[in-house]
Amino acid sequence: MSELWYSEFYTENLKFTFRVKEVLLKKQTKFQTLEILDTYEFGRMMLLDGKVMLTEADEFIYHEMMVHPAVLLHPSPKRVLIIGGGDGGIVRELVKYKEIERIVLVDIDAEVVEASKRFLPQLSSGLDDPRVEIRIEEGSRFVREEKRKFDIVYIDSTDPVGPGPIGPAETLITPEFLKSVKAIMREEGIYVAQSESPVYQREYLKNYIEKLKKLFNTVKPYFIMVPSFSGLWSITFASSSISPYGKLRESPLSLRYFTPEILKASFQFGEAYLRD
Amino acid sequence: MSELWYSEFYTENLKFTFRVKEVLLKKQTKFQTLEILDTYEFGRMMLLDGKVMLTEADEFIYHEMMVHPAVLLHPSPKRVLIIGGGDGGIVRELVKYKEIERIVLVDIDAEVVEASKRFLPQLSSGLDDPRVEIRIEEGSRFVREEKRKFDIVYIDSTDPVGPGPIGPAETLITPEFLKSVKAIMREEGIYVAQSESPVYQREYLKNYIEKLKKLFNTVKPYFIMVPSFSGLWSITFASSSISPYGKLRESPLSLRYFTPEILKASFQFGEAYLRD
Repeated sequence: MSELWYSEFYTENLKFTFRVKEVLLKKQTKFQTLEILDTYEFGRMMLLDGKVMLTEADEFIYHEMMVHPAVLLHPSPKRVLIIGGGDGGIVRELVKYKEIERIVLVDIDAEVVEASKRFLPQLSSGLDDPRVEIRIEEGSRFVREEKRKFDIVYIDSTDPVGPGPIGPAETLITPEFLKSVKAIMREEGIYVAQSESPVYQREYLKNYIEKLKKLFNTVKPYFIMVPSFSGLWSITFASSSISPYGKLRESPLSLRYFTPEILKASFQFGEAYLRD
Repeated sequence: MSELWYSEFYTENLKFTFRVKEVLLKKQTKFQTLEILDTYEFGRMMLLDGKVMLTEADEFIYHEMMVHPAVLLHPSPKRVLIIGGGDGGIVRELVKYKEIERIVLVDIDAEVVEASKRFLPQLSSGLDDPRVEIRIEEGSRFVREEKRKFDIVYIDSTDPVGPGPIGPAETLITPEFLKSVKAIMREEGIYVAQSESPVYQREYLKNYIEKLKKLFNTVKPYFIMVPSFSGLWSITFASSSISPYGKLRESPLSLRYFTPEILKASFQFGEAYLRD
């Protein structure tokens, strides 16, 4: 039998290569290529346009660190918006909090949601929660037209920069998009975005932070250790009224990666990056 | 022209692959295969037995984080021992401190030292410092026979675990070796070792810490972010009289990665690992 290997290119000169047990799904949707691979090292893996979105083995690191800092820094998060995140990982973490009353998930691609429900039940388990409203539409259109205000907005998008094809995420980094998001956030709100590798998309992250600083008083990146994402990834926190270094609300949840101390350490690496 | 790519296997199911401009050196020494590749992404790279030992682009992270924590936690480091480290990176950081009077470097393989002098001048620049004594011999024999006592011992070895062939480092993790090292350390001494990937050699690291706990009162790993080492690597600190969380001496050095805050954050990740 031939051996199957899948490579993700980090740059044109560097790739990370996973041995594959089985290709569970491989299709072209209206917006992007969508694949679910079963890998030896990381279990099932979702790829969009050839880039690893998540793996069963380490998605908890990314999703915990996307969700819990903002929820526990916000004094009273009730209404939450997710742009992207059709796999359901962000939702799964959010539905753990009874104080959250409404979760609006806006993903452009219904096939991502369907694939997650079919192949990644532990990711998509929260999507049926009655507080969750799933909207299949373009995020940039949604934020232009939406009238409700949100306490927290999560941008859980595909990669808006190369190498390789850039999918629908490119509309999620324009100044117009960011302004529209700010307009549907409550004054006491928090914006959280996955912001790429601080190693391989270093300039992208610098520019992204500068763009956000035009809109928010405080913009701070923090770094997380995700083996299947080249080991290291960045998330950017932005707010005009809430400090990322403030006291976290008490949480009864038992999490696997997130702790207040780990969050503090993660921001230290972000501070070092900002000083460079 | 054909494209050259080099892959390092992290496990049998996972590899990291670098595009190569040129193979500068490739030989079998008496102890291991030794290669110097010029890569597009990380500049020149030294490999031993097919594993990345260092790259020009990010060796400063590893070497700063190996050397400076112990030097600045120790109240008065004068005599220092390095086992391995024939490339000279550890030495280069140590010679920055005038309080260090003697640096003994014990590497089994003279060809590593020669290759570094020839191809990696910025690594090997400290090897000519008059305080440096280079001994080409087996580390385990050296520590059995040595009579002097050291303030700090650095274990900068090749990988003592697989996948792939295990080189001369396998003698550097036996209880006998560790006992001999302890015997030539001053009571107020610090032991620092590179201790592999906390992701791909997780069990190795756990066992290594347990072995060291039989000899030292305090054993704490800390994690560093090294892109060419799968993103994440561990270093283990051990001492019977000095706390890794104590106050660091003032340093006039301007470093690129190490700061007291980053060290504290790095230990936080180690603490989280120990709790798992």
